[in-house]
Amino acid sequence: MKSKRIGKMTVKLENKPTIISTGSVVGPKEGEGPLNQYFDLVLTDDLYGQKTWELAESKMVETAMKKAVNKAGKKLTDVNYLFAGDLINQLFPASFAARELEIPFFGIYGACSTMSEGISLASMIVDGGFADLALAGTSSHYCTAERQFRFPLELGNQKPMTAQWTVTGAGSVLIASEGNGPKVKYITTGKVIDKGIDDGNNMGAAMAPAAIDTIYSYFEDTKDDPNSFDLIATGDLGVVGKKITEDLLKERGIDISNVYVDCGIEMFDLEKQDVHCGGSGCGCSATVFAGYIYDKLVKNEFKKVMLVSTGALLSPTSTLQKQTIPCIAHAVVIVNN
Amino acid sequence: MKSKRIGKMTVKLENKPTIISTGSVVGPKEGEGPLNQYFDLVLTDDLYGQKTWELAESKMVETAMKKAVNKAGKKLTDVNYLFAGDLINQLFPASFAARELEIPFFGIYGACSTMSEGISLASMIVDGGFADLALAGTSSHYCTAERQFRFPLELGNQKPMTAQWTVTGAGSVLIASEGNGPKVKYITTGKVIDKGIDDGNNMGAAMAPAAIDTIYSYFEDTKDDPNSFDLIATGDLGVVGKKITEDLLKERGIDISNVYVDCGIEMFDLEKQDVHCGGSGCGCSATVFAGYIYDKLVKNEFKKVMLVSTGALLSPTSTLQKQTIPCIAHAVVIVNN
Repeated sequence: MKSKRIGKMTVKLENKPTIISTGSVVGPKEGEGPLNQYFDLVLTDDLYGQKTWELAESKMVETAMKKAVNKAGKKLTDVNYLFAGDLINQLFPASFAARELEIPFFGIYGACSTMSEGISLASMIVDGGFADLALAGTSSHYCTAERQFRFPLELGNQKPMTAQWTVTGAGSVLIASEGNGPKVKYITTGKVIDKGIDDGNNMGAAMAPAAIDTIYSYFEDTKDDPNSFDLIATGDLGVVGKKITEDLLKERGIDISNVYVDCGIEMFDLEKQDVHCGGSGCGCSATVFAGYIYDKLVKNEFKKVMLVSTGALLSPTSTLQKQTIPCIAHAVVIVNN
Repeated sequence: MKSKRIGKMTVKLENKPTIISTGSVVGPKEGEGPLNQYFDLVLTDDLYGQKTWELAESKMVETAMKKAVNKAGKKLTDVNYLFAGDLINQLFPASFAARELEIPFFGIYGACSTMSEGISLASMIVDGGFADLALAGTSSHYCTAERQFRFPLELGNQKPMTAQWTVTGAGSVLIASEGNGPKVKYITTGKVIDKGIDDGNNMGAAMAPAAIDTIYSYFEDTKDDPNSFDLIATGDLGVVGKKITEDLLKERGIDISNVYVDCGIEMFDLEKQDVHCGGSGCGCSATVFAGYIYDKLVKNEFKKVMLVSTGALLSPTSTLQKQTIPCIAHAVVIVNN
């Protein structure tokens, strides 16, 4: 079969895998942010009726997946594959959601890059003719992530201003071989990049080089024009990482400043909501994409969008072993024609 | 594009993605087992010259990947995608290996099913024309797994006889769009199955229902004959899980007893090596496949093999929250023509 590769790191999808619907669930704090109207469900209680935060996060994933399927008028049994993962050890939320959904399941892990990793794999699987319908999605929860990666919430630790706030949210996309909706057209899959940052409270600076490498590779591979995009959205670089990304890409001859946003900055009102550099977590780019960006694509207010979810592949164990932070970013380009 | 689906859970690959080489690295204890001659490298020291077991496991992954690439006469830069994951939180070993390999990276997690998950995804990506070369692999390490999932090794805890021994090993496959070698022909992707087992020292019983569901689905989808296989190998069900699988499949009309082995049982001399029910861990089916099974395929002593790696998707957190163990199994069918 003829290769669909363009340049070193990019593939072009010829069979128009289509995002026919999305699902999004966010926590109370996210619901108080500027994107409130775009989410399917805003929880009033971040335990979501469960006994633990991990089980709540799992139920959020399950709900986001079911919403996408229901909104498309499909049934869970119509879906051929489920791609999901999250930040929590052994993908507790995704695995337990997959148990309830009963769809053949590929667990994936890209830290906060998981949303675009899932869209990439689901789109290729649909484009290649292996599935008619594939779900992809991810989640994060402030309370599960904080206690696993940092400190017990009860300690009330303060954070430096470079830190970010893990989004409580789950987002999903349903990708189909046929149907109306925005199409996934290009996929640029990132390499692991580590420039030596070891400060877990400055993830934006750690992840920016990975975002830069992936975005630069896309433009090098395709010779596309940044200004042909309505939006280029990184996942959760926050204020510090966004500025690094924009500046260093400009130095390398790629000026994305006219169209560039970061989902972590869009999610919250940074001044009023006390989230320091912005939102983070797998659920950040997942819900901003499944909610806000997808809505604008469907209304044709956006015609061409790049989502670049960004992930920091550290673990508490690697940090204790004094390792630096390996990072990754995956880009998907979604168009309306 | 015409769907390649057969039945509910299976796809047939038409473009003959070929496993052109493999790589395998195991620890000292595994090297003392009956499969010694089939591994590329047997370590004399399970720290592999590193400061921690996690860094040793990461170096094992890196070595197994490089061996597969070198043996095929390729370069790392020729490889389009790397699929890897492991049992350790946030995929510490795989992520850090990916940093060294500098190949576009999809992190995956299926617990001990990760080898066949990786082969499934890499094969579809190659079959669909998205890559000319894709690496897939996984690892486990007795010392990293024990301290994360159970107890500090220094405690010297005893285990019940239903428990298994986590294999120290890393295995990889290099899958190509062209070349000589065994071909990946069918893929049956498992659902998460949970029959209510909550004993982390009886993983074989927990995982058997997932293996049964996936193997049964393959035969239901394809109407294939179990006796047309030279080998059907589950990942790490051990003595207890293997018997459950064989018996319950027979009750459902599928008799695999003539050709059925379990990689966990093959890896060790169960009587002499004191491993209770057998080997386990991602590295178990990964190294048994990349070493022993692949060798027999290349020599045409096996012409048709099914690998069904099996995973238990529990986490220490889910266990503490009194949850049962969700399990999964993915099947790949590999043929010599």
